[in-house]
Amino acid sequence: MLEKEIIVGVIGAGRIGKLHVSNLKNLPNVRVKTVSDVFIDHLGEWFETSGAEQLTKSYQDILNDPEIDAIFICSPTNTHIEIIKEAAITGKHIFCEKPISFSDKETMEAFEVVKKAGVKFQIGFNRRFDRNYSKVQGLVEAKEIGDLHILKITSRDPEPPSLEYVSTSGGLFMDMAIHDFDMARFVSGSEVEEVFVQGASLVNPEIGKIGDIDTAIISLKFANGAIGVIDNSRQAAYGYDQRLEAFGSKGSANVKNETESRVEFLSKDGVKEDKPLHFFLERYNDAYIKEVIEFFEAITNDSEVSCTFKDGIMAQRIAMAAKESLESGKPVKVKLLEKLTIN
Amino acid sequence: MLEKEIIVGVIGAGRIGKLHVSNLKNLPNVRVKTVSDVFIDHLGEWFETSGAEQLTKSYQDILNDPEIDAIFICSPTNTHIEIIKEAAITGKHIFCEKPISFSDKETMEAFEVVKKAGVKFQIGFNRRFDRNYSKVQGLVEAKEIGDLHILKITSRDPEPPSLEYVSTSGGLFMDMAIHDFDMARFVSGSEVEEVFVQGASLVNPEIGKIGDIDTAIISLKFANGAIGVIDNSRQAAYGYDQRLEAFGSKGSANVKNETESRVEFLSKDGVKEDKPLHFFLERYNDAYIKEVIEFFEAITNDSEVSCTFKDGIMAQRIAMAAKESLESGKPVKVKLLEKLTIN
Amino acid sequence: MLEKEIIVGVIGAGRIGKLHVSNLKNLPNVRVKTVSDVFIDHLGEWFETSGAEQLTKSYQDILNDPEIDAIFICSPTNTHIEIIKEAAITGKHIFCEKPISFSDKETMEAFEVVKKAGVKFQIGFNRRFDRNYSKVQGLVEAKEIGDLHILKITSRDPEPPSLEYVSTSGGLFMDMAIHDFDMARFVSGSEVEEVFVQGASLVNPEIGKIGDIDTAIISLKFANGAIGVIDNSRQAAYGYDQRLEAFGSKGSANVKNETESRVEFLSKDGVKEDKPLHFFLERYNDAYIKEVIEFFEAITNDSEVSCTFKDGIMAQRIAMAAKESLESGKPVKVKLLEKLTIN
Amino acid sequence: MLEKEIIVGVIGAGRIGKLHVSNLKNLPNVRVKTVSDVFIDHLGEWFETSGAEQLTKSYQDILNDPEIDAIFICSPTNTHIEIIKEAAITGKHIFCEKPISFSDKETMEAFEVVKKAGVKFQIGFNRRFDRNYSKVQGLVEAKEIGDLHILKITSRDPEPPSLEYVSTSGGLFMDMAIHDFDMARFVSGSEVEEVFVQGASLVNPEIGKIGDIDTAIISLKFANGAIGVIDNSRQAAYGYDQRLEAFGSKGSANVKNETESRVEFLSKDGVKEDKPLHFFLERYNDAYIKEVIEFFEAITNDSEVSCTFKDGIMAQRIAMAAKESLESGKPVKVKLLEKLTIN
Repeated sequence: MLEKEIIVGVIGAGRIGKLHVSNLKNLPNVRVKTVSDVFIDHLGEWFETSGAEQLTKSYQDILNDPEIDAIFICSPTNTHIEIIKEAAITGKHIFCEKPISFSDKETMEAFEVVKKAGVKFQIGFNRRFDRNYSKVQGLVEAKEIGDLHILKITSRDPEPPSLEYVSTSGGLFMDMAIHDFDMARFVSGSEVEEVFVQGASLVNPEIGKIGDIDTAIISLKFANGAIGVIDNSRQAAYGYDQRLEAFGSKGSANVKNETESRVEFLSKDGVKEDKPLHFFLERYNDAYIKEVIEFFEAITNDSEVSCTFKDGIMAQRIAMAAKESLESGKPVKVKLLEKLTIN
Repeated sequence: MLEKEIIVGVIGAGRIGKLHVSNLKNLPNVRVKTVSDVFIDHLGEWFETSGAEQLTKSYQDILNDPEIDAIFICSPTNTHIEIIKEAAITGKHIFCEKPISFSDKETMEAFEVVKKAGVKFQIGFNRRFDRNYSKVQGLVEAKEIGDLHILKITSRDPEPPSLEYVSTSGGLFMDMAIHDFDMARFVSGSEVEEVFVQGASLVNPEIGKIGDIDTAIISLKFANGAIGVIDNSRQAAYGYDQRLEAFGSKGSANVKNETESRVEFLSKDGVKEDKPLHFFLERYNDAYIKEVIEFFEAITNDSEVSCTFKDGIMAQRIAMAAKESLESGKPVKVKLLEKLTIN
Repeated sequence: MLEKEIIVGVIGAGRIGKLHVSNLKNLPNVRVKTVSDVFIDHLGEWFETSGAEQLTKSYQDILNDPEIDAIFICSPTNTHIEIIKEAAITGKHIFCEKPISFSDKETMEAFEVVKKAGVKFQIGFNRRFDRNYSKVQGLVEAKEIGDLHILKITSRDPEPPSLEYVSTSGGLFMDMAIHDFDMARFVSGSEVEEVFVQGASLVNPEIGKIGDIDTAIISLKFANGAIGVIDNSRQAAYGYDQRLEAFGSKGSANVKNETESRVEFLSKDGVKEDKPLHFFLERYNDAYIKEVIEFFEAITNDSEVSCTFKDGIMAQRIAMAAKESLESGKPVKVKLLEKLTIN
Repeated sequence: MLEKEIIVGVIGAGRIGKLHVSNLKNLPNVRVKTVSDVFIDHLGEWFETSGAEQLTKSYQDILNDPEIDAIFICSPTNTHIEIIKEAAITGKHIFCEKPISFSDKETMEAFEVVKKAGVKFQIGFNRRFDRNYSKVQGLVEAKEIGDLHILKITSRDPEPPSLEYVSTSGGLFMDMAIHDFDMARFVSGSEVEEVFVQGASLVNPEIGKIGDIDTAIISLKFANGAIGVIDNSRQAAYGYDQRLEAFGSKGSANVKNETESRVEFLSKDGVKEDKPLHFFLERYNDAYIKEVIEFFEAITNDSEVSCTFKDGIMAQRIAMAAKESLESGKPVKVKLLEKLTIN
């Protein structure tokens, strides 16, 4: 429990911004003072029961409010860098949704500003806080599976986003697989050194026409010698398919999907169980709450967050290497961070 | 969501009373004004963060408070009848923990008082609100399994209560199996006509010495022609074991246990998964919240509760028949409610 | 492997007789010399590829053949006693299908004759040889589950036999549940002392009209203090449902159904797996082979069979007690064997 | 059932040769006349109970025997080409273990000889006959999963072979993954166009020193547009891990491991089930029998085998491309068969 109240501003009231506001409302000693969004006309009804106190068109109102301790950046990716820099300078602690940006250079600049300002910065890799993934990470770290040899990640959405969204999303790697790149680093406890991509637009050819893919097999080579693979699809007919397997010299640990119930139905047609939970809101509800609790505890206790700026940078760099591999048809090295001393 | 605020008093601050207060605190438009308990000296620390506004030794303070709309009866069973009657007369809506009482006569008297007063009365059969049990009940009601032929319920606690608790609990049937008797009625949609018990004290012979049992097989005959069985144990080494199977002419639906994670670990020793969740607090957390939401909605909308006084009476009568069967070694008919017109 | 050849006669070429012939054909050093059946006209085609050498109308041809070492009694139950006695006197080893007879008195007489003759006698409780049931029996015997507290057996056929068959079968207990009674004794390592039955004809009311039932819950009280329950149905829409759970002070071991494949299919309709294997031929194929191998090894090595005449007697007596309980509506004691010294 | 007897010679009496002899012995109308092996001194004891009639040092004795209809080539890979050619010329039908050879040129020459001779030729891709894989192949072919998008194959041995074996095995791709390459073609119904390999020697560095790997992630691009991945390990601590997932536009079908029993054990340590079956002898026992039955039926009925010379060629070519990818660190195209007209 937080000992003293933290006052929060949320920038961006899209799907993920609303999700955070909804969770923050129920946390003791957390007060959502202001929400900003460039389009607020349609937000009236939501705002009334949101638990937030004020709604504004300008995120500057949040940064300029000396009472606000911490901000949540939930606006489109192309706005992140500017907001991060300004917020750090005004001394706000920052919780930023992924990815940090589409440019490594800009991300590194923002990183320097944040480092200098000394504010807390947490990137929204919520899956690290999921009960299943964190348990497997613990088994790997404790060498319960021996040395890690193979890491496999399955990550499939129930349905593709709109073409409009896809076109500004940064593409499959930056928008969707970036979570899986973080999972790969998190569970393995190692950097990814090289990636190779087989990609296709099999779900919807229109996605291919605008230069993106919807289906991918991403081979990984880890710095610690292990190898791995991620498979992605924008559309699994049976729901949100999120699994992981860590295979090592002494055994294997794997995460299965969560389901809506534990009911089994037997009939002449076979044995039937529930599909995986529909999407990330259902699957990772608890993880979204846990990640913000950690953020607030880091602020209160001046402790480290476990999901750092560095984690954001590295996932972004793997996404960039993946994109380059898809375009070149060759394996691509991931740019490492050797000269930096972060966290 | 509740449209207008409901003000609540909670009588009894033991384990279950605290659980309700903790859940009520997070419900919008619900205000826990007063908690009463005959022993309040040790409750100070709990009270501070409980979200309740006042603590008193006398439940009369709650009944006499005209501002309070509804009460939760979480005190020992032998106090229920008196509180129910007084509360009904003062016009309070009543949420009562199971069982209503240990006496059918007293329960029927209290029922008449509640009926006359016209207040809402809900009995705390929380499992009806569990996602798994309610799904199977729906499958049975919709005849997805055809006609019900066999109903099987497994209900085992992870550890026995103290002998002190056992001695005043009303015994295995009244204290523990009463939930299963309600499940039997709920899922089958039928009354239980006859029970036969095989019982033993295998977990702890001391339980036998004070006249109770800790292990039971309870055969059931339903009014609709189906048959069934409940097996109970006060101690399952692997945790809270709560399963149910509804077998019918066209198929079978069953509820499996919930587990702490969906992680599987493979090694030379085999394939290992998590145990069932430890106990009712973990397993039925959501169900405890859903049941009180329904109670408040019934008050707000003047609608019927789905867990009625009648359900409390009938589960209690099955428990009484079970006790008689254990003592006589013979099958015993359950006293039915034919003359009553309830809900 | 058998060191010397064993020559076999099979009496009765119905479903189970044919099954044994088919298995015997593939065993090294086993020769099926003669098959007898009172109706042989329709057996011609089967006989040709059966692997048996001769077909006769009279089982006497088998008993009178000095070359034949062992017989399999697969004829209707009401012929068993006479054949057992005659075979024992002529020195044939006997493998007898269940039940031995419908009369305890006749069974005990036959037992005395067999004991005096000193021939091997094995009763066809094939499930003892199933990989799953024998594993759980081993776990119980080794106290891996601690002391046994509750034993639960589910045993449901995929479809009811013809009314004609039912009318001469001896009824649900003698024909079908007798396997479960043996399982109860086998897995618990204890005698059953008392049974109580809730029975109904829910699958087919015609079965009720001819004095039998098709659905049952059978409560059990064991001599070792444990309690148990068997549930039976003549018709499970999803196939042969054969499960068992042994619950004890330190844990629980259970047998799940076997399925046609280990393929899982996920779609928008849910997650689907195969039904249980259709019936006993599919489910217990290996067990049928293992039981006859043990029988032949007992002959060759003059060793004990693990499925004895006593096992046949006791399962039969539990069936009788169950029938009496159904008729009287009361729990019934099982007649024990205290004065006998068998095996 | 075969209508007329087929007389067989088996060349090579190592592990796989003995396995085939053992299965052939139990098939009706199949006679194993001669087994050849260059080292026969140690085979005496095995031969006695093998069911084979003659043992010889020279496979020529088999090819020169006009009575022999069909041969099984189970000798080391480097002897295959010569034997295939000679056998085809003498008119023997050929069942050949994988891989056909280590040289594409030699394999193609042998193919021409076999084609000209018109004898039956079946390659030993036994997994096609496994109940699980063939079921998933059927679901893919029937478009039950819609269009195939992603194919994933896990194939891990329980323990690595000896270094001596590894050094002459042709390497991980030719020796072990070749089965998976065939599975990829079989289940997808499509050729593999391109492969990319991440490989390592993590199980045993000595394997790396002799120029092989023991752990691999193999990305696949199919001619039909789908993509896929195979992961291999020479050592899974928990046994033979053989799984497959076919993911498509309408759903997903997957093969789970087979286990020694269907028993589940619950204790304070968790819920435990059996490991996967130990190795290929246990897992694919039935498939080894089914594949030879198809071979004999093709001979008897002059029908096509489903596992053709072409299947052998193509799996071999994928293995070669995989090896080249490992060495070059780049994706490599698979040489296709466009000019050939082969079944």
